[in-house]
Amino acid sequence: MTDKQAPLFDPAFREKFDALVQWRRDVRRFRTDPVDPAHVDQLVAQACLSPSVGNCQPWRFVLVEDPAMRAAVRDNFKRSNAEALSAYAEGRAALYARLKLAGLDDAPVQLAVFADPETPYGHGLGRRSMPEMLEYSVVGAVQTLWLAARTRGLGVGWVSILDPKPMNAALDAPKPWRLIAYLCIGYPMEEHTDPELERAGWQDRVDPAAFLFRR
Amino acid sequence: MTDKQAPLFDPAFREKFDALVQWRRDVRRFRTDPVDPAHVDQLVAQACLSPSVGNCQPWRFVLVEDPAMRAAVRDNFKRSNAEALSAYAEGRAALYARLKLAGLDDAPVQLAVFADPETPYGHGLGRRSMPEMLEYSVVGAVQTLWLAARTRGLGVGWVSILDPKPMNAALDAPKPWRLIAYLCIGYPMEEHTDPELERAGWQDRVDPAAFLFRR
Repeated sequence: MTDKQAPLFDPAFREKFDALVQWRRDVRRFRTDPVDPAHVDQLVAQACLSPSVGNCQPWRFVLVEDPAMRAAVRDNFKRSNAEALSAYAEGRAALYARLKLAGLDDAPVQLAVFADPETPYGHGLGRRSMPEMLEYSVVGAVQTLWLAARTRGLGVGWVSILDPKPMNAALDAPKPWRLIAYLCIGYPMEEHTDPELERAGWQDRVDPAAFLFRR
Repeated sequence: MTDKQAPLFDPAFREKFDALVQWRRDVRRFRTDPVDPAHVDQLVAQACLSPSVGNCQPWRFVLVEDPAMRAAVRDNFKRSNAEALSAYAEGRAALYARLKLAGLDDAPVQLAVFADPETPYGHGLGRRSMPEMLEYSVVGAVQTLWLAARTRGLGVGWVSILDPKPMNAALDAPKPWRLIAYLCIGYPMEEHTDPELERAGWQDRVDPAAFLFRR
């Protein structure tokens, strides 16, 4: 049984989709002009159409606008970043110190994304042998949101240099929720096809053929 | 500094992208006609343009064609599924037993996706405080692959009802790799906008507004 006719995704669309994937970036340099709040609602709605294990919809999006909360996140980043820096040997440390790793000062929209292990949906289906599917479902939603943002000219930066433990209290999120991503969202200062870390000489991209194995 | 001019993602493209997200499904009913091997290479290449923490590119794709390996995966699924079934109470168990949960018998392409914790790229950046970013990067790549497949008319089903422990040996994958996803890929028998688990009465989708919180 089929319902409505599926749209035809023709070669022209496919080509543009591939370009979208190619031009998606982890953005850390944002313009400070505001983002239409309707965009945020749309991005969350798009993200919620992502697959989730057992259709358990474990994603919880927290839009962080409170200045004190934002400051707490920035402090957490600064501490975590200083600790990460201290673990590198001299040459790498100097390079690390020059990297721009987050857009927390400028991004007009900040969205924390959590997984709710107590999600009341899905009756546990599909995550008995791989319970991590709960978190993975939320990650898939983040990637959908990221691409949807790019179709709207918006850049996303995923800040992972954070200690997740104090984040629930800092953002007044229920204790059982697990932080998956802290996203900076806004209009990017620059557009690139190559990752920032490649441009900065930290790590190049590798030929995809190197990642495909045949059995 | 900007490089090439970014393509304009206009409203018509955005609308079609949103439709793509809406028509993506977890497919379990596949036609058995073969998939052009070039498509698989393209999908892996697209997936490798996904974000990865520190640009560490931890994704490892194993294309499983060997019949004995496929049989081992099917047996693993059957065992894991029987165990999952036994955990449900009567009414739910009957409903669970009727669900079609994997396309392992028919899908012409089967792709195991692993994370390599020993990836030689990225110098550990961005995963000191959240080491799970390694696995999350691979999940993002799976979601990109999923959408890219749909632009090519291909369906993807993510089989998570598997015991991951014996999978490395079964697929001759290096021991340290961690199984993230086992994907069935092929042309879908049917096209739908609603998830299979919704049609089967297992779990409906919830209004996305319920998942957005403001602080």
